[in-house]
Amino acid sequence: MSQLEQKSSSWSALFAEPMNELVKRYTASVFFDRRLWRADIEGSLAHARMLAAQGILAAADLQAIEAGMAQIAGEIESGQFEWKLDLEDVHLNIEARLTQLAGDAGKRLHTGRSRNDQVATDVRLWLRGEIDLIAGLLAQLQGALLDLAERNTDVILPGFTHLQVAQPVSFGHHILAYVEMFSRDAERFTEVRARVNRLPLGAAALAGTSYPLDRESVARALGMEGVCQNSIDAVSDRDFAIEFTAAASLAMVHISRFSEELVLWMSQNFGFIRIPDGFTTGSSIMPQKKNPDVPELARGKTGRVVGHLMGLITLMKGQPLAYNKDNQEDKEPLFDTVDTLKDTLRIFADMVAGISTVPEAMERAALRGYATATDLADYLVKKGVPFRDAHETVAHAVKTAMAQQVDLSQLQLADLQRFNPAIGQDVYEVLSLRGSLNARDILGGTAPAQVRAQVARHRARLA
Amino acid sequence: MSQLEQKSSSWSALFAEPMNELVKRYTASVFFDRRLWRADIEGSLAHARMLAAQGILAAADLQAIEAGMAQIAGEIESGQFEWKLDLEDVHLNIEARLTQLAGDAGKRLHTGRSRNDQVATDVRLWLRGEIDLIAGLLAQLQGALLDLAERNTDVILPGFTHLQVAQPVSFGHHILAYVEMFSRDAERFTEVRARVNRLPLGAAALAGTSYPLDRESVARALGMEGVCQNSIDAVSDRDFAIEFTAAASLAMVHISRFSEELVLWMSQNFGFIRIPDGFTTGSSIMPQKKNPDVPELARGKTGRVVGHLMGLITLMKGQPLAYNKDNQEDKEPLFDTVDTLKDTLRIFADMVAGISTVPEAMERAALRGYATATDLADYLVKKGVPFRDAHETVAHAVKTAMAQQVDLSQLQLADLQRFNPAIGQDVYEVLSLRGSLNARDILGGTAPAQVRAQVARHRARLA
Amino acid sequence: MSQLEQKSSSWSALFAEPMNELVKRYTASVFFDRRLWRADIEGSLAHARMLAAQGILAAADLQAIEAGMAQIAGEIESGQFEWKLDLEDVHLNIEARLTQLAGDAGKRLHTGRSRNDQVATDVRLWLRGEIDLIAGLLAQLQGALLDLAERNTDVILPGFTHLQVAQPVSFGHHILAYVEMFSRDAERFTEVRARVNRLPLGAAALAGTSYPLDRESVARALGMEGVCQNSIDAVSDRDFAIEFTAAASLAMVHISRFSEELVLWMSQNFGFIRIPDGFTTGSSIMPQKKNPDVPELARGKTGRVVGHLMGLITLMKGQPLAYNKDNQEDKEPLFDTVDTLKDTLRIFADMVAGISTVPEAMERAALRGYATATDLADYLVKKGVPFRDAHETVAHAVKTAMAQQVDLSQLQLADLQRFNPAIGQDVYEVLSLRGSLNARDILGGTAPAQVRAQVARHRARLA
Amino acid sequence: MSQLEQKSSSWSALFAEPMNELVKRYTASVFFDRRLWRADIEGSLAHARMLAAQGILAAADLQAIEAGMAQIAGEIESGQFEWKLDLEDVHLNIEARLTQLAGDAGKRLHTGRSRNDQVATDVRLWLRGEIDLIAGLLAQLQGALLDLAERNTDVILPGFTHLQVAQPVSFGHHILAYVEMFSRDAERFTEVRARVNRLPLGAAALAGTSYPLDRESVARALGMEGVCQNSIDAVSDRDFAIEFTAAASLAMVHISRFSEELVLWMSQNFGFIRIPDGFTTGSSIMPQKKNPDVPELARGKTGRVVGHLMGLITLMKGQPLAYNKDNQEDKEPLFDTVDTLKDTLRIFADMVAGISTVPEAMERAALRGYATATDLADYLVKKGVPFRDAHETVAHAVKTAMAQQVDLSQLQLADLQRFNPAIGQDVYEVLSLRGSLNARDILGGTAPAQVRAQVARHRARLA
Repeated sequence: MSQLEQKSSSWSALFAEPMNELVKRYTASVFFDRRLWRADIEGSLAHARMLAAQGILAAADLQAIEAGMAQIAGEIESGQFEWKLDLEDVHLNIEARLTQLAGDAGKRLHTGRSRNDQVATDVRLWLRGEIDLIAGLLAQLQGALLDLAERNTDVILPGFTHLQVAQPVSFGHHILAYVEMFSRDAERFTEVRARVNRLPLGAAALAGTSYPLDRESVARALGMEGVCQNSIDAVSDRDFAIEFTAAASLAMVHISRFSEELVLWMSQNFGFIRIPDGFTTGSSIMPQKKNPDVPELARGKTGRVVGHLMGLITLMKGQPLAYNKDNQEDKEPLFDTVDTLKDTLRIFADMVAGISTVPEAMERAALRGYATATDLADYLVKKGVPFRDAHETVAHAVKTAMAQQVDLSQLQLADLQRFNPAIGQDVYEVLSLRGSLNARDILGGTAPAQVRAQVARHRARLA
Repeated sequence: MSQLEQKSSSWSALFAEPMNELVKRYTASVFFDRRLWRADIEGSLAHARMLAAQGILAAADLQAIEAGMAQIAGEIESGQFEWKLDLEDVHLNIEARLTQLAGDAGKRLHTGRSRNDQVATDVRLWLRGEIDLIAGLLAQLQGALLDLAERNTDVILPGFTHLQVAQPVSFGHHILAYVEMFSRDAERFTEVRARVNRLPLGAAALAGTSYPLDRESVARALGMEGVCQNSIDAVSDRDFAIEFTAAASLAMVHISRFSEELVLWMSQNFGFIRIPDGFTTGSSIMPQKKNPDVPELARGKTGRVVGHLMGLITLMKGQPLAYNKDNQEDKEPLFDTVDTLKDTLRIFADMVAGISTVPEAMERAALRGYATATDLADYLVKKGVPFRDAHETVAHAVKTAMAQQVDLSQLQLADLQRFNPAIGQDVYEVLSLRGSLNARDILGGTAPAQVRAQVARHRARLA
Repeated sequence: MSQLEQKSSSWSALFAEPMNELVKRYTASVFFDRRLWRADIEGSLAHARMLAAQGILAAADLQAIEAGMAQIAGEIESGQFEWKLDLEDVHLNIEARLTQLAGDAGKRLHTGRSRNDQVATDVRLWLRGEIDLIAGLLAQLQGALLDLAERNTDVILPGFTHLQVAQPVSFGHHILAYVEMFSRDAERFTEVRARVNRLPLGAAALAGTSYPLDRESVARALGMEGVCQNSIDAVSDRDFAIEFTAAASLAMVHISRFSEELVLWMSQNFGFIRIPDGFTTGSSIMPQKKNPDVPELARGKTGRVVGHLMGLITLMKGQPLAYNKDNQEDKEPLFDTVDTLKDTLRIFADMVAGISTVPEAMERAALRGYATATDLADYLVKKGVPFRDAHETVAHAVKTAMAQQVDLSQLQLADLQRFNPAIGQDVYEVLSLRGSLNARDILGGTAPAQVRAQVARHRARLA
Repeated sequence: MSQLEQKSSSWSALFAEPMNELVKRYTASVFFDRRLWRADIEGSLAHARMLAAQGILAAADLQAIEAGMAQIAGEIESGQFEWKLDLEDVHLNIEARLTQLAGDAGKRLHTGRSRNDQVATDVRLWLRGEIDLIAGLLAQLQGALLDLAERNTDVILPGFTHLQVAQPVSFGHHILAYVEMFSRDAERFTEVRARVNRLPLGAAALAGTSYPLDRESVARALGMEGVCQNSIDAVSDRDFAIEFTAAASLAMVHISRFSEELVLWMSQNFGFIRIPDGFTTGSSIMPQKKNPDVPELARGKTGRVVGHLMGLITLMKGQPLAYNKDNQEDKEPLFDTVDTLKDTLRIFADMVAGISTVPEAMERAALRGYATATDLADYLVKKGVPFRDAHETVAHAVKTAMAQQVDLSQLQLADLQRFNPAIGQDVYEVLSLRGSLNARDILGGTAPAQVRAQVARHRARLA
């Protein structure tokens, strides 16, 4: 009797008693790792084909395995496959079914392989595919942000530091800050992908195998960029899961910052934007409410992803080599991170496309905070006043304007000249919001011309 | 048409378009929060009865609600209840069904209540029940550990510091260290429970309500210890989730330390214990393996719980009052923490009951590390040598014994006297493992008499 | 030669080479643990007095130790004590100096003790003192908040959920939500203190000692509530550091939420409060700025404390018993957590005392969001309309008011009656902000009478 | 009077009262950010030279600034510079001193610049330098590991999975697993460096500036790879700090795993290696102890770095753009991460160089666990038995050998043939440890020939 046939009673002849029922449920992973089934089959087929090419597996056996796997894939896709707790995980479930279908050929598939290198291969294959989907979603979100930025290049937003009005900025410019963030995220995922996309298979349990496997041909067949060069590292390494989750955490931090701003801008006290009704919800008690549930929930989900990062690091900290069962705990946080990030990016791309702005509300707010005070200081510097002295002079001017409850641009020229006689009529151009905006016409600055140039650069990059 | 009947088309008359399908799935919680159904019904019934007692709800309406809820409970228990995504969460699903069953009475149930205070009440009720189950499991695990300690009070284990042999200790004494840890965990859960067990209901959306609710009677009906005294705090507070998860993290840290030791002790290089076969697994490739999967997995699951703690704290950090949708993210980490902790405690209680020790392996190991060197120093101190000088003298003796590849107890008296002439024949008693053990006969020390006294104390505490 | 005299050359006769210079700096703790000096001396004196009482130490030796310690305390306080890297930590530094001053008596002090139980005792003694200071600061902050709440009980704030105007609340009521939070923090610290305040001394290295120590008398002398009952647990346990830091993290989460609101309220778009100039800073470039640096920095420092919590948990995860050098890493995060929390609480107590409110800005904001819509729904319920139908009716009314750009209270009675004929003239009372506020007159609700009652309750609690 | 001259009294003319003393200490950063002084001066000089080249600053002013900065650098290096709390941070301290030395020229330096872009530039410049040092240390550590691996290529270690003996591996092969990890770390730091090395300067407060700065020339002058393309992102981005700390956390996780193994291998129950005395410490009470303090402490320091990562993420989560004071909290965790990582890598490179192995202890341990059972299964597969059946057959053989308390290689041929008649005399070669090792001669496998090839590959990579 083969080992898999009797799994429900005991692990092998060595075990005097069957696995405790509670233990079976506690240690089984089939309920979550079955989402790896496609990668598992793909990896097994590449392994089997290489075994055949190397003369380790007969051609007829390979054929039986290929036919069996095709049937299994069909069964899984159609929901007919019976997943068994007794068979612990996706690997043994598929292998046991294969042996039913293909007989001894099925039992030969595991030659030169262990679950340790098999699972690492499966997860890497699966994650590579997910990273590609995420890259697409990041591009989509950036595209939606670029559209929003372009539509609002000339809209004036009060730029905040410390949530205090600082200087007027183009709303489009502000949105491009997020494009920068998500483009860095895309860069990071590309780099992570290169390290994910290496082949552990051939490491077997931990030491390699005595069969003459051709690992590099398997890597090529699976589209991988290389082979893990050390068998012990191959089965014990979970860096790729941690660095993926770290990259995802940063992406979610960006989402959280954007969400925070969307929630603020939606608040009646700002009223800067409108989010389409389809992305808001009401209240079970307050009939007047339209709540920005999507950004709030996304902001909250940042915690979830960061928690997974912490969990994965804690998991690996201090583990001796090579494989330990602890590692099984890498999957659920990774899966949930992928799901959360993909859902969030997708919904944000949709939502951003529907955001409309309320320029007059932004402009009104910009006028409340002496947003052009720096421009007055710069004006004085250009008249020869050292910057630090100009700064102090303007502080006095602002104080006066505050006392009069007017903006700087509403002070009389004579009043302004009392602070510094060099001030002339041309100061009023400098003190206007739009003048201030247009003046910041340097690389990376907020002048609409710069914003348009950046939009064009990003479009070219994403094309 | 009531608000719930049209939920699939739009939130209320205020909303121009229905909720985006993707948004519906993203924001819905019914797939995970339906586990709160029993608490939800319990809370609703207490609310309804109080409304009736206060004259806000007619007796007939109460009767209809009670009948409806009884039927709903039956439907859920039997799996016949149809959970609808369109109805978002457990609360609206149950209320909508109630309205089908009880008509206008159902629509009156939400009087003076909001989902904000309702969900906080549900989670608290549910968590209180889970804490009680955890308390029971902690007691069970402590009981199993006490049995193990009692069976092994006279077994000598090499006590390690820095994983280097330090001094001989009773294996039972070592196990009691874990009883101390789990008893502290139990203390903490008791304290957390008191803060969980307070009633938010009556806070409504955030400000309280204009209905003359009798909140204290609801609290009494639900077995709660008090009423949340501030309505805004009542709906925005998630301290209880964080402090519960912090307590759970500590319990899992203890589990992880114990697991680390079980794995070490099971390793062939120690061979100190045997874990029943039913708690181990084999290898898909190495036929000789029996792996301590349960402790390894439990050690790994520490990461998961700690990750949830980090996630929850990140979630709440910087949130303005009162309720924000972010808070919905409190549930999954909390649920998974509860499940993980309960499963782990249960399986550990079972596993510990089956652990057997290999005293001769422990004793052999204890003899390898000059475990009685401190006893020799103490012996010299009792002869009048200051401790710091005695310490140095013994270092010389150990060096000599190492060179001769013998234990201190195998050095000749003459050799020992060369280090200090005060050493007499009675030193050999001091240098034996058992002599060393028995000598540490102070409160909290490792002498078997002390261990037995501690076992008795713990039994009395748990009884 | 005693062990300490030659520490600069090698650890003991067993060591063939001195400690690597880099290692010395890497492993030394004296640069940060010397802040424990007072606890170290206090613990040593209690230990010595007990040794003398038990007849283990001669009266003259005790006298020499007491005199030496008095001198050492003076030297440290006056900054004359020479801390030496070669002597690793606070314990050996003090002991070596004592031996210089008191000769053999000094060498006898370490009898029946190890650094493992000594350091655990020191940290617990020190932390207990800090917890007491924190308790005082929490009370001070609560006092300042109570004053602020009392001064602003009748000030109407737009209560937000989802940062959307929800219902009018008393500003004082809102502030009391924070009093609830900080009072829970105080509760938690009290509970943690009880577990901190237990005596490890007597556990020696890990197994207890063969000297007839009277541990309970030492505990009493040090004002501790009990004795650690298991020597192995006593030296390996760091629960107290983790649970203290968890409690501190929660307190900082509360600070971060309050900070978020202060920053919002200070923003020109809200303008609800003023923070005294002394608690704000300007900009190096923008002359008009007054930035709420203190709340922002405090919000940021939440990350620091949470990071320490995660660091400490990671530190302890998976450590085998008993003492490992890893544990030395418990100190810096603990010290920094204490410093950060104390500084933050102190500065917040001061700052809160200086906060002034701008009631008209709050009221203006409350009028912008149909804050009394729920009151209209409740009004209809009281006329017999089921709540869910009333909710939908009010949604229609809000829609109409929005279209007319007026508040609900500005709709004509005839218009209102079109939504429901039962609406009468008395509805206008319900639709006013103050009417809404006063109506929520239940326990925990926002009606000024309730707020005043809560202030009184808190004052009594804190007195 | 300029703004800096009066800083001790108030921020600017706008402020009615000076900064609260406690606030001053709470918000000041000069005590930790002064370590950025060199980068601050370097950045200021590049800015000044560009201002001069653009005609914004007079040649004489530039000269005065250069002379002043040279003097300041000298003062700081020699410890004569007086750092003032009143001047908050490294930037204002240096600028104020410059103004003393260079007069109005000093006041002109801040033209077109804000502290927001200045501090971001400083931290990036400083971190870039630290990354280069870390890269060197990682290479050093890898070099030491390669030497250790090379010296021990033919030494047989029992390879563990689940800390149970699995298969024999080359000790050198095992060590190379760590070389793989640290080489991945080096890859990651290289990638992070590219994102760190971009120039924020020119972003000014958040919007860019109205001066015609040439940002790209400043970037070139500072050896940076590009210019931050969005001014708002430039001042608010802290991704680089987070991703650096994430990379450092992974490096520390690798250190923690290696440390765990070193501690195990040093334990008397393993006795596989010796660490030089200079890297161990003794005990204050147990004279026989030699403790592996360095690996233990390094394992503990993993928590510290991971804590900083979590702290930084928590810090940035949910922050609205652009700059908030929270960001000041990025520095201390970053600084401590750099220090910890550098110290740890340096000490590990030294320590690894001194590690010696005890081959006979490893071999003895390998013989205890039926390490060649997989080889027997593979042997049967080569005789035509399907792998799954061979696995079960070998389980029976192991059971028999266990009962007889012998290794598989000590079973009689006749006994072995009872399990499968195809077994021949050649099986004994397969059952030897060295035969097993040599058989795993595939890419990444543990055969000594493969190990030597990998050492050569790594040496070429590092050269």
